[in-house]
Amino acid sequence: MIKKLIDGIKRTEAPIVVGLDPKTDFIPGRILNPNLEKFGQTAEAVAESFFEFNKEIVDHICDLVPAVKPQIAMYEQFGLPGLIAYKKTVDYCHEKGLLVIADVKRGDIGSTSESYALGHLGASKVGDVMVKGFDADFATVNPYLGSDGVKPFINVCNEFDKGIFVLVKTSNPSSGEFQDKLTDGKPLYETVGALVEEWGAQSMDGSYSNVGSVVGATYPEMGKVLRDIMPHAFILVPGYGAQGGKGSDLVHFFDKDGLGAIVNSSRGIIAAWKNEKYGDPTKELLGEAARSAVLDMKEDIHTALN
Amino acid sequence: MIKKLIDGIKRTEAPIVVGLDPKTDFIPGRILNPNLEKFGQTAEAVAESFFEFNKEIVDHICDLVPAVKPQIAMYEQFGLPGLIAYKKTVDYCHEKGLLVIADVKRGDIGSTSESYALGHLGASKVGDVMVKGFDADFATVNPYLGSDGVKPFINVCNEFDKGIFVLVKTSNPSSGEFQDKLTDGKPLYETVGALVEEWGAQSMDGSYSNVGSVVGATYPEMGKVLRDIMPHAFILVPGYGAQGGKGSDLVHFFDKDGLGAIVNSSRGIIAAWKNEKYGDPTKELLGEAARSAVLDMKEDIHTALN
Repeated sequence: MIKKLIDGIKRTEAPIVVGLDPKTDFIPGRILNPNLEKFGQTAEAVAESFFEFNKEIVDHICDLVPAVKPQIAMYEQFGLPGLIAYKKTVDYCHEKGLLVIADVKRGDIGSTSESYALGHLGASKVGDVMVKGFDADFATVNPYLGSDGVKPFINVCNEFDKGIFVLVKTSNPSSGEFQDKLTDGKPLYETVGALVEEWGAQSMDGSYSNVGSVVGATYPEMGKVLRDIMPHAFILVPGYGAQGGKGSDLVHFFDKDGLGAIVNSSRGIIAAWKNEKYGDPTKELLGEAARSAVLDMKEDIHTALN
Repeated sequence: MIKKLIDGIKRTEAPIVVGLDPKTDFIPGRILNPNLEKFGQTAEAVAESFFEFNKEIVDHICDLVPAVKPQIAMYEQFGLPGLIAYKKTVDYCHEKGLLVIADVKRGDIGSTSESYALGHLGASKVGDVMVKGFDADFATVNPYLGSDGVKPFINVCNEFDKGIFVLVKTSNPSSGEFQDKLTDGKPLYETVGALVEEWGAQSMDGSYSNVGSVVGATYPEMGKVLRDIMPHAFILVPGYGAQGGKGSDLVHFFDKDGLGAIVNSSRGIIAAWKNEKYGDPTKELLGEAARSAVLDMKEDIHTALN
C-alpha cells in the first residue's frame, strides 16, 4: 500500500494529505442551514453537513493530492450519524481516486487490536463471506501498549495490503511529557522509532515499509534524528500550518529523493474559505479556497525542499 | 460519577465489571443462525447477534454487578452495523440499571480529544439543543500524547459528571516495552500514575476522583506500588481470569476498606457457557452460565480480600 501512496505523491508532485476534520464552525451556512431545516437540531443535521462539506472540498482537491486523512473523532463526536458520515466520506474519497488515511489512533492488547485492524483496514469472515468494516487504506496506531498491540495491525496490513502509521512523536505541546522521557540514555520516541523500523521489516513494499510513523512538524530536530533511525518508515507529518509547522521545518523529514514523508494540513485547507487571503469569507467558496490553500502549501514545501 | 460506581459496588458487594466483548466464536447457534437466515452472511447478522447475546448476559447478571464494560473494538470490527449494536448495548445496560464503562482507549491532541470525550461521555450543542453521542458513564483513555490529550476528557467529566480510567499499566505481556522503561529512576507507569493522581485532584467525587486508572491484574506488585502513588484514583483492573490474573493477585489493588478497585472479567463470564464447569455446552445456557461465573468470581474476590 505504501507504494501506492508514493506513486500518488510522484504523480501529483505533492507530498500532501488533506485532513478532513470538519467542525460545525467550519461549515458554511449554505450547507448547515438546509440540513438543520431538514433534520432539525440533530446529530443527523451536522453529520450530513459534514459529508456535504467534505464532498465539496474533495471535488476541488482530488486532482492535486494523493490522499486525505479524516480524523474519526470529529465524526464520533456525533455518534452513529457522525460515523455514517465518516463512512460515506471514506467511500466518496475512494470514488474520487484518493487514498484514505484513517486517523483513528487505535491501540489495544492483542486480539482487541486485531478487531480494530480488521474493522478499519481489513475484513472479517461471516460464513463464507468477507465483510468489510470502514475499509480505509491506512490507519494511525497508538503504540503505548507495546508490540503485542501493534503486531495484529501489521498482520492485517500484510494480509490485505494496507498500511499503518505508528505514533512516534506527536505534534502537540505536551507530547514530550512521556514521549521525550529519557530511557536507556535516549528519549522514548527514539525507542519507539527503532521498534517501528524493526516491525516494518516484515512489511516492505518497495523501498519503504507499510509500517510508517507519525512525527509532528512542530518538532523538526527530532524529525531529523528519527528519519535516520527509521530509514524504511514513511513519516506522516501533522502539525503543519495552524499548529505552527512551516515548510522550512519539513526538510529533515524527507529523504534525499524528496520522498519519505507526507505532510498533513487540516484547518489551513478545509477552513481556508474563512481566511480573507483566499477571498471574501461571506461568499463561502470553500472548495475554491481549499484548492488555493493546497497549491500554496505545495509551493511552500517545494521551495523548502529545493 | 465515581461515587455512583462505588455505591453500586457497595450495594451488590461485587467490585466486578463484566466485559461485554462479543466474538462470533462466543455466540451460540440458536442466536447466530436465525440472524444469518434473516440478514444473510452480513455484518448486520453478526451485529444483531452481538446485541441479543449481550442482552441475554445482561438480563442474567444485572442484579449482581454494578457495571459492564463493552470493548468497542469488537463492534467496530463490523463497521456501522457493529456500532449500532454497541449503542443499543449501552442503552440496554442503562435501562437495566447498570453503569457503562466504554472501553475505547481513545486519546489524541487537545481539540480532538475533546471531540472523543463529547462523543462518548458528553454532548454537543446543535443550535439550542445538546446532542448526545454514545452516552457512556466512563471511558478508558490512552495517555501517550500527554496532559493536553487527557485534560479535555477531564473537562467533559467535570461538566457532565462522568469518569475516565487512564491506562497506566496494561495487562498484556508486552505492556512493559514502553510502560516499564526507567525514566528519572522510576518506571514510566509510575510517572503516569503520579500524573493521574494530579489530574484527578480537580475532579474529586467523594473520597475518590472521577479520574481513575487502568492497572492489569497480571502485574500485582506494580498494582501495590500504584495504589500508594494514586490514593484517590479508582483502579479498573483487567486481566482477571482468561488472561491469568487470580483473586489472590488482586488484594493490593484495593484500599483498606475493600474499595478502590473494580475488576473486569470478559471471556470468563460471557463465554462461560462453553466451559463444562458451568453445564453442558450443547445446551447453550449462556445467561445461566454467566450468572454462575459472576458468583464464582465474587466469591474468589471476597475470599482473597478477607
